[in-house]
Amino acid sequence: MKSSLHFLVAARQHEMAALEQLGKACALVVAMSGLVHALQKERGLSNMVLASGGAQGTELLAPQRLQVDAQMANVRDELDRLGPHPSGASGARLCNAIAYTLQGVAALPALRAQVQAGRLTPPACTDAFARLIAGCLAVVFEAADSANEPEISRMLVALFHLMQGKELAGQERACGTSAFASGQLQPPARAQWLHLIESQERCFEVFASLATASVLVLWQAHVAGDTDMAAVERMRRVAHTAAGCRLSRSGSADWFAACSHRLDALHGVETLVAQELQVLCLHKLQAQQQALAALQALPPGAEPAEAGAEGREGGMAFFEASAPPDAWSLDAVGAPALGRDILSLVQQQSQHLQTMQSQIHEAKTALHERKTLERAKGLLMAQHQLSESDAYQLLRQTAMNQNKRMLEVAEAVLAMAALVPAVPAANERR
Amino acid sequence: MKSSLHFLVAARQHEMAALEQLGKACALVVAMSGLVHALQKERGLSNMVLASGGAQGTELLAPQRLQVDAQMANVRDELDRLGPHPSGASGARLCNAIAYTLQGVAALPALRAQVQAGRLTPPACTDAFARLIAGCLAVVFEAADSANEPEISRMLVALFHLMQGKELAGQERACGTSAFASGQLQPPARAQWLHLIESQERCFEVFASLATASVLVLWQAHVAGDTDMAAVERMRRVAHTAAGCRLSRSGSADWFAACSHRLDALHGVETLVAQELQVLCLHKLQAQQQALAALQALPPGAEPAEAGAEGREGGMAFFEASAPPDAWSLDAVGAPALGRDILSLVQQQSQHLQTMQSQIHEAKTALHERKTLERAKGLLMAQHQLSESDAYQLLRQTAMNQNKRMLEVAEAVLAMAALVPAVPAANERR
Repeated sequence: MKSSLHFLVAARQHEMAALEQLGKACALVVAMSGLVHALQKERGLSNMVLASGGAQGTELLAPQRLQVDAQMANVRDELDRLGPHPSGASGARLCNAIAYTLQGVAALPALRAQVQAGRLTPPACTDAFARLIAGCLAVVFEAADSANEPEISRMLVALFHLMQGKELAGQERACGTSAFASGQLQPPARAQWLHLIESQERCFEVFASLATASVLVLWQAHVAGDTDMAAVERMRRVAHTAAGCRLSRSGSADWFAACSHRLDALHGVETLVAQELQVLCLHKLQAQQQALAALQALPPGAEPAEAGAEGREGGMAFFEASAPPDAWSLDAVGAPALGRDILSLVQQQSQHLQTMQSQIHEAKTALHERKTLERAKGLLMAQHQLSESDAYQLLRQTAMNQNKRMLEVAEAVLAMAALVPAVPAANERR
Repeated sequence: MKSSLHFLVAARQHEMAALEQLGKACALVVAMSGLVHALQKERGLSNMVLASGGAQGTELLAPQRLQVDAQMANVRDELDRLGPHPSGASGARLCNAIAYTLQGVAALPALRAQVQAGRLTPPACTDAFARLIAGCLAVVFEAADSANEPEISRMLVALFHLMQGKELAGQERACGTSAFASGQLQPPARAQWLHLIESQERCFEVFASLATASVLVLWQAHVAGDTDMAAVERMRRVAHTAAGCRLSRSGSADWFAACSHRLDALHGVETLVAQELQVLCLHKLQAQQQALAALQALPPGAEPAEAGAEGREGGMAFFEASAPPDAWSLDAVGAPALGRDILSLVQQQSQHLQTMQSQIHEAKTALHERKTLERAKGLLMAQHQLSESDAYQLLRQTAMNQNKRMLEVAEAVLAMAALVPAVPAANERR
């Protein structure tokens, strides 16, 4: 027969098992950050080789590919360590994102062969790498979404937005490099470029709103003090205000170099977040272990006898303790009185679990808002054959016209799509 | 080295492990439904014994207590079967609710001794049993909240609201019995009685909105056709429109009998929901087992070689498949093309997981709204020394004045409390 102490301990053990899993997921996220950075470098060099017909970057590409392979080996080690994941839907989504990414990794040799043979344009190459990196970011997203500890969850959500913003900065590098190299900035490329700037700034805003104080110091040094960031901003202005949309072809190399340094600086911030994340996981696990040990050290006498307690002093404590009108919201229970032992521990733990749930919900709001916006954008792109930036502008303009948040408009778009799977207007346009 | 097929299978295994756990939690909920019904009967008889000074109900009370003990033994069997629960915060909350309820069960002998000795008033006895039953309902709430399968989740949320409404009907029985027995209906008792009617109707509305077609048929027969329900409605009217608030003392026994029959009828509906729930769990588990077996039967050749695929036909499929702008929202991916094997399975599974997540979110909305309202109500009661019905009226009136939903007002109340832990005005009132 299991006692209430048994279930009190079991509740703590669940929290600890979840923390251990989360620690492994965090280690995977850290490895993913390294892999993404290496892939971004390989993408930049691959584009350089493709754009120059093999005249530039070739000697750097082979070692960079080895770098990617080494980072991938790290990721595989972490995957092997993952072990049995937290069960349930969030564990399933994480596994599925991993499966998707491994498909992309398996296809990387074919992509490299195409680059080697010069059979891809730089934009097609950029897209292919972006898709693989998007898979890696999907793993980070699901790891953040499955986190059940508020502080770790908050840090993972911050890291995801930093990585996503950095990837958009990487795509901006490719976009600008092509524009400078072609000597002009046509309206479609201009719109895409502006969209990439705006999207990465949204990501960085979320990141900065969730980052710890120490990370923020490094971040602000990057935003305000970095000479490469200043160079990027200057070249952005030059490109977007150029008379007759004409750009100096020589700007291409400078732009590429400044953007590359900027990506390295962003990776530096990422590395600091990753370090703090691993320390935090360790601290949380130690605290949880101590709490569990304290519970397990309770004398058996702390548990009231389960039967035959008729007439015992204090046997009515359960019915007399201050309790909320509905005990299933146990969290509203007041401070526990002395001598109530297990009951007061149960009430304390309820309060702790409720607080955690609220805080986790708060930390993940940014994640769910982002997912909703992206899904609505993807739906509009598919239904109306819009570009990403046009779909985004449509959402934004509708929100402004209706005096609503973009999130509300996005939710309405998705709700309507669920009701009307095939929109006639969209089909006619095809 | 783990392949993408490995993680695709792992994703399914997580779903299945979660379903197995959910099946056990459902069995526990079914046992809880039996225990709550037995406790409600013991409460009714205990009140009868207390109110009559031992003249009535004594011979029925002892067998009913044995009935409760038998139901509790059922619950303990299910607790022993629970095994390692789904890890993480929802598993921890379920365990904690169980620990709380077991504390109440351990205190039951002391409560019975007080009843035996005639040392309790009927209202105090009602409150004590209500607290224990609230613990049982907390277990049902957490089981519903931890469910990760949309149909099962929906049915558990429906069952929770039915059980909660039935418990409020049980409290209404006690409240009306006291009023009839005292020969009058004073304003405080009148307000409490009306609040119990209104609250149970809100619960039953949610229940009916989520119930299956077959359950609805039985439910509507109860609401519309049941003679006991008609008797309850007639006596409610008589009590609340009585001239000079004077009631006929002889109404007490009739009221008790009609309400008791009504509780039995509600338990009949509960039993049907419980049966459907167990059949559904079985079906879902079988479907999941088949899907997993199909995945595991895939020939190893379905997995593309992870390396050395340079130049292979189809090696670029990953980069060419229609994909969303951000692959971490994989669900926007279109119908999979033939011959893409694992990749298309990953995409199908992503879509399935995304759909499940949305549907689960929808099913749980009622649960979270209820929890928010109850928490806000509890907070107002504690801060302003209000009765439950006054706190509820305050929330409702504020919502009407501000033209908002009660949920929004409740959220604002909780958000403010988080910012201002000790409200001066509330302290001054104490």
